[in-house]
Amino acid sequence: MKILVTNDDGIYSDGIEALTRALNEFGEVVVVAPSEEQSAVGHGITMKYPLRVANYYKNGSFFGYAVEGTPADCVKMGIRNIMGESPDLVISGINHGSNTAINIIYSGTVSAAREAAIMDVPAIAISITSHEAKDFRFAGKVAKLIAQKVTEHGLPRGTLLNVNVPNCPEEEIAGILVTEQSKAKWDDIYEKRTDPFGKDYFWLTGKLVEVENEQKSDQLAIKNKFVSVTPIHFDLTDYETFEEMKSWNIEKIFNEKTR
Amino acid sequence: MKILVTNDDGIYSDGIEALTRALNEFGEVVVVAPSEEQSAVGHGITMKYPLRVANYYKNGSFFGYAVEGTPADCVKMGIRNIMGESPDLVISGINHGSNTAINIIYSGTVSAAREAAIMDVPAIAISITSHEAKDFRFAGKVAKLIAQKVTEHGLPRGTLLNVNVPNCPEEEIAGILVTEQSKAKWDDIYEKRTDPFGKDYFWLTGKLVEVENEQKSDQLAIKNKFVSVTPIHFDLTDYETFEEMKSWNIEKIFNEKTR
Repeated sequence: MKILVTNDDGIYSDGIEALTRALNEFGEVVVVAPSEEQSAVGHGITMKYPLRVANYYKNGSFFGYAVEGTPADCVKMGIRNIMGESPDLVISGINHGSNTAINIIYSGTVSAAREAAIMDVPAIAISITSHEAKDFRFAGKVAKLIAQKVTEHGLPRGTLLNVNVPNCPEEEIAGILVTEQSKAKWDDIYEKRTDPFGKDYFWLTGKLVEVENEQKSDQLAIKNKFVSVTPIHFDLTDYETFEEMKSWNIEKIFNEKTR
Repeated sequence: MKILVTNDDGIYSDGIEALTRALNEFGEVVVVAPSEEQSAVGHGITMKYPLRVANYYKNGSFFGYAVEGTPADCVKMGIRNIMGESPDLVISGINHGSNTAINIIYSGTVSAAREAAIMDVPAIAISITSHEAKDFRFAGKVAKLIAQKVTEHGLPRGTLLNVNVPNCPEEEIAGILVTEQSKAKWDDIYEKRTDPFGKDYFWLTGKLVEVENEQKSDQLAIKNKFVSVTPIHFDLTDYETFEEMKSWNIEKIFNEKTR
């Protein structure tokens, strides 16, 4: 069982160390992670610049490969060059902060797992719901459990699991729920400041606006102290609108000239 | 009719100028675009650094607002701060190079339009299939036409249109097709080089591997010189797998303790 581990908080983060420790009991782990924090980079890949890779040590021992790139870069580079073969599983995390609702679009953690799914490797993204989380033991246990379940049942090609773990003691956890991506979105506010030279700059802030009466959402699950497991995919086609657009008759606009 | 125009090639690119020119006949255009090229940045947003905005001039006239950020940043900032209200439409492009198949995941152009859809604004991403394209007149005409159709029919909340225009003379265009996202993916190759100081670095290269027997795909459409129009959305939930996972029984793992 070969497992590629990555994240978006950077190879030096506590979350990836906890994840690696939990998975070491389960398989052979190779860590390929960004040399710098890459939160909210989405599914960016590096094409304007080349990538560099360096060995990274923790507590005097080799820990993994640090890539000067995005989480998606790490997965591509990890599979194509560093491992040179497809692992049995890719796990990205443990991310500091939840990746639910629209955040999965912005998330580097989820994008890394999605890149693995694109490359036909079963993949899991795992996050803990607080940026200040210090105790990753339960989240590590969940990572191992979900990894076992994925190994046992497999995942359809192109599907990954997005896991969110409430940041609370294990005894307070209400259970595990299979969920859907919540429709909650950000109400953005740009906070204006002025630099010492008189020029304006803007910080992105805001709050996630929850949706009333959602039944099976990731957001609701973590709110109620459930571990949330959402199957997601990368076929973005809106098939419903695809059908509706037949009535638009746009296919006829240029065709008569040529056919 | 207020239209926000953005792109990922940068505010100085020819594609965004052509798009703005085509849309000026149709509505009041506000340009908010990245000050630097942002290709393949995916749906990244800027949170580690603040954003800065500057007026940008072309040929001695005010052209638009240059934002030191990603395409998604430009849409958020453009709507929240610069316009201060939702436009009737957001159009992103005209991108140099096609955004079909898996490329829509990596694309800054598509992510900008997707950010607008997240913000409940009807949105269109438009690309021309060559990086060397010089003549954007037909693509501009298509942008205006699709904008008209979107205004006429509306789009469901959360849906955007991803348009790809073949880079050929208008008389060779076969027509317009409503399409699905192709399943084609990249076969990545990292090209290794050595810098003058003896250190290795790696360039991402590779080729898009087409899928046999696709019927209605964006990739097939542009190959056959059709304009491709794909409705896409940002609900990534894989509902099929959601149902299948009921047989995994993972929801029972922690629950018995607490319920």
